[in-house]
Amino acid sequence: MRDRLLRAALGQPVDTTPVWFMRQAGRYLPEYRRLRERYSLLDLCRDPELAAEVTLQPLRRMDVDAAILFSDLLIPLWGMGLQFHVEEGRGPVLPAPLSAEEAAGLPELDLQAVEFVPKTVQLLRSVLDRPLVGFAGAPFTVAAYLLEGRPSRDWPRTRAFLHRYPDAWHRLASRLASNLATYLKAQVQAGAQAVQLFDSWVGVLSAGDFRWAVRPYLVQVLQAAEGAVRIYFATGCAHLLGEFRHLPTEVVGVDWRVDLREAGRLADGKAVQGNLDPARLLGDPQALRAEASRIVEQGRAVRGHIFNLGHGVLPDTDPDRLAELVDWVHERGRRT
Amino acid sequence: MRDRLLRAALGQPVDTTPVWFMRQAGRYLPEYRRLRERYSLLDLCRDPELAAEVTLQPLRRMDVDAAILFSDLLIPLWGMGLQFHVEEGRGPVLPAPLSAEEAAGLPELDLQAVEFVPKTVQLLRSVLDRPLVGFAGAPFTVAAYLLEGRPSRDWPRTRAFLHRYPDAWHRLASRLASNLATYLKAQVQAGAQAVQLFDSWVGVLSAGDFRWAVRPYLVQVLQAAEGAVRIYFATGCAHLLGEFRHLPTEVVGVDWRVDLREAGRLADGKAVQGNLDPARLLGDPQALRAEASRIVEQGRAVRGHIFNLGHGVLPDTDPDRLAELVDWVHERGRRT
Repeated sequence: MRDRLLRAALGQPVDTTPVWFMRQAGRYLPEYRRLRERYSLLDLCRDPELAAEVTLQPLRRMDVDAAILFSDLLIPLWGMGLQFHVEEGRGPVLPAPLSAEEAAGLPELDLQAVEFVPKTVQLLRSVLDRPLVGFAGAPFTVAAYLLEGRPSRDWPRTRAFLHRYPDAWHRLASRLASNLATYLKAQVQAGAQAVQLFDSWVGVLSAGDFRWAVRPYLVQVLQAAEGAVRIYFATGCAHLLGEFRHLPTEVVGVDWRVDLREAGRLADGKAVQGNLDPARLLGDPQALRAEASRIVEQGRAVRGHIFNLGHGVLPDTDPDRLAELVDWVHERGRRT
Repeated sequence: MRDRLLRAALGQPVDTTPVWFMRQAGRYLPEYRRLRERYSLLDLCRDPELAAEVTLQPLRRMDVDAAILFSDLLIPLWGMGLQFHVEEGRGPVLPAPLSAEEAAGLPELDLQAVEFVPKTVQLLRSVLDRPLVGFAGAPFTVAAYLLEGRPSRDWPRTRAFLHRYPDAWHRLASRLASNLATYLKAQVQAGAQAVQLFDSWVGVLSAGDFRWAVRPYLVQVLQAAEGAVRIYFATGCAHLLGEFRHLPTEVVGVDWRVDLREAGRLADGKAVQGNLDPARLLGDPQALRAEASRIVEQGRAVRGHIFNLGHGVLPDTDPDRLAELVDWVHERGRRT
């Protein structure tokens, strides 16, 4: 098996810099859009054959070092008796934000209701020659969707909830932590060699609030995935990097805002994943290559570096441009 | 005149910590909501009598150390032949995002078209016993609205535009800089003793992109307001603080994510404004006071500190709670 992603994550020597992309399966691929003419996004997630097919699509076009399970952050809600839908160009929307009472009374995960996820993992493992990255949302980020009811810029209802209903928050976060731990563990047991925990919106919190409201629950979920390579990803988190070094994770994923070497210094011995601005892929090809080279070089100075974007692939991205980037990273990252 | 805000901004001794709030005039005030039953937000901005009335409303309820001109970030667009409307709960929306051609061809500001703004400033100066803070959006943040067409979480079209059309970007930013400089200068000449430049969304950029795409234009606008106390405000900017120390501004305003002492250290001799999370006002009153005290204490360690929220007052805020906070800050900040 092609294992350079796992080796880099563990700080072991690699032949070249491993690379994969967040949202490497998705709307920018014409073959994905063709499937979407017949199926909704959630239909694709729910059917193991279709989810596996979408997961594999980018691997037929580009030489990435991992597949990432095609799914949605809020899928586990189906195992908690909650419904949501996905609005095109906007993201997941709930019928209404959860009340404090509803938040405090969230039920235990019914894994049966989402068994199609570990099934998809098994299916993929039987055909893949490289690692499969499973994934889940981190408790804070999933809670933010529940409390806001829809995507938000800086999640004011969620921040207010922490301070207005601290007891309900602890109950919600604790239940989400155990549910997401179960959900992630099921993926690892089904064969995912790595998992990425998306804490996309945690950067709206101060370090103080991160410590009391987020960290204990995050640790619980990460610990449940022990044995797999764990990647913890957050955006807009320059002020939280110093907090991440103590998390039980092998890799810290960062966005394009932060300096990769600085992230490596603050993550203190963990591997680092990132961090090309996905918007760069829409610009001048030569400038893109120069920026990618710069990131590859910075990555040589950290304990382990996995090349990725700073956030998901943008829908306007040219797939050929992305495939060329993979080859460029592999070439520039070669160890001699 | 009550001048402790100006004194703190210049690093001069003060009797106590000055305090005002972003969006201290607005939807959380019942008297404002009553006006909004008869007038749209933009109608209120456009009429000097009404805009002055709204500006003064919070001063009748709380002992803040400054008034902030009631207006909207995109008002100067009316002097550039562009239209927008404001969607309730969403923010300003343009008919369509600007094309590269439109962006590169933005006209010079017709100050006549927005003369109601300096008129409002004059009106306010004739009745105020404390400083008036004028304001404008910074070039990047105004450009982001133009290029995205609507509020966004991390402004991907704008980031892509920088890299896809660097020449059009420079033309757009350069024209916006000279237009916003004119607009801000008119407020200073009309009597605003301080101005705040809102660069609310610049935190989506890396330091590298900030340097080439933002800094020169920002400097141009700030220089135009020389003579007034200048406050440069950005959110989510922990990774950019080191860049701000070289800006021609007396004060750097920061949000709740960053540590105020760290901001003071990085701003290196500038005064610092901030940074209570507005969501705290919706929580337990005792915890709120403790957090406010902590921030006041941190502020004593920086060159000059102006107490503020880390972003605008949230609509659910109780005005009495806010008025109590002002008194609390003044009491805790007293110099002996």
